Amino acid sequence: MEFNLKQSTELLSRTPLILNAWLQDLPADWTHKNEGEDTWSAFDIVGHLIHGEKTDWIPRAKLIIENGEDKPFEPFDRFAQFNNSKGKTLKDLLTEFERLRHESLKTLSALPVEENLDKKGRHPALGSVTLKHLLATWVVHDLNHIHQMSRVMAFQYRDEVGAWREYLGVVRSI
Amino acid sequence: MEFNLKQSTELLSRTPLILNAWLQDLPADWTHKNEGEDTWSAFDIVGHLIHGEKTDWIPRAKLIIENGEDKPFEPFDRFAQFNNSKGKTLKDLLTEFERLRHESLKTLSALPVEENLDKKGRHPALGSVTLKHLLATWVVHDLNHIHQMSRVMAFQYRDEVGAWREYLGVVRSI
Repeated sequence: MEFNLKQSTELLSRTPLILNAWLQDLPADWTHKNEGEDTWSAFDIVGHLIHGEKTDWIPRAKLIIENGEDKPFEPFDRFAQFNNSKGKTLKDLLTEFERLRHESLKTLSALPVEENLDKKGRHPALGSVTLKHLLATWVVHDLNHIHQMSRVMAFQYRDEVGAWREYLGVVRSI
Repeated sequence: MEFNLKQSTELLSRTPLILNAWLQDLPADWTHKNEGEDTWSAFDIVGHLIHGEKTDWIPRAKLIIENGEDKPFEPFDRFAQFNNSKGKTLKDLLTEFERLRHESLKTLSALPVEENLDKKGRHPALGSVTLKHLLATWVVHDLNHIHQMSRVMAFQYRDEVGAWREYLGVVRSI
C-alpha cells in the first residue's frame, strides 16, 4: 500500500482515542508493569509518545521542508520519558498526549506536505530519508507501540493461561 | 502477576471501546487489507472475536462449572468469521461485538467464578485446563488480536518507512 497523507492522518488522529479507551482508569497492575529490567510499561510508552510529539515528528518535518539535507535532525532521546513523566499520573500523560497530537496534526495540515513528500532530510544515524518516509514512520511508530503495549500486558498473564500458551503468539515465545 | 477476576474484566470490558476508537470509519485500506494469502485483516479479526463471544468463553466457562472434565469443550472454529461476516459492514461487526461482550461480562458476573477458579475442564486438544486458565486466556486472546491488528496495519506501510524500518520492531522482521 502506498503512502497517502489523508489515510495517515486518519490513523494518527485515532491513537489518543485508542489509548484513552484502553488505559484511562485501568488498574495500575496493567499500566505500570513492564517486561522486566530495562523494559517499558504502558505508562512509559505514553511518555515516549509525548516526547515524539514535542521533539520528533513535526520538528523534523519542518526541518526537511525548510532545510532539506543541509541540517541533520537532532538525535531523538528514547529515554526522555523517564525524567519527563516523573510525578505525573497516567491521566496527566493521556491528556497531554491527546492535546499534543491534536496540535501536531493541526500544524501538519498547514504545512506544504504533498509537494515536498520526496524532499530529503538527513537522519543523524540512518542518513538520507524523505518527508514521506518520516510521515509513514510516524504512523508505523504509533502501531509499533500499540503492538508493544499489548505484548507488555499479555506478558503479565503469561503463566496464568496454562496449556493455552502455545496457541497465543503474543506470549508463546517469551 | 497472578490472575485476578476484577482486573481481568476491567481489561475485557475495554476491548470493544479500543476497537471502536481504532476502526470506526477508518479507511478500508487499513481495515480490510491483510498480510497476504491466508492471513487476516482487522475486519476478519473482529469477526473472529464475535465468534469467540458466541461459542467459546462463556459456553466453556459454564461447561467447566457445570460438568468439570466430564464433557470436553466443542472445538473452536477459527475460520467461522469468513462465512459469518459475509455481507456485513465493519460497523455492523463492531456493534455486534460490543453488545456480545457486554452480555458475556454480565453473564460472567452472575456465575460462581471465584470458588471454581481451579476447577478443571477438558480441552479437545490441550487436555486438562482450569477455569482460571480459560479466563486468563480470554484476556490474553484479546491482547493477542490487538497485537496482530497493529502488525497487520503496520505491514501496509512496510515499504513506505524507508531506512527507519530497522528501528521498527513491528515491521523489521517481515
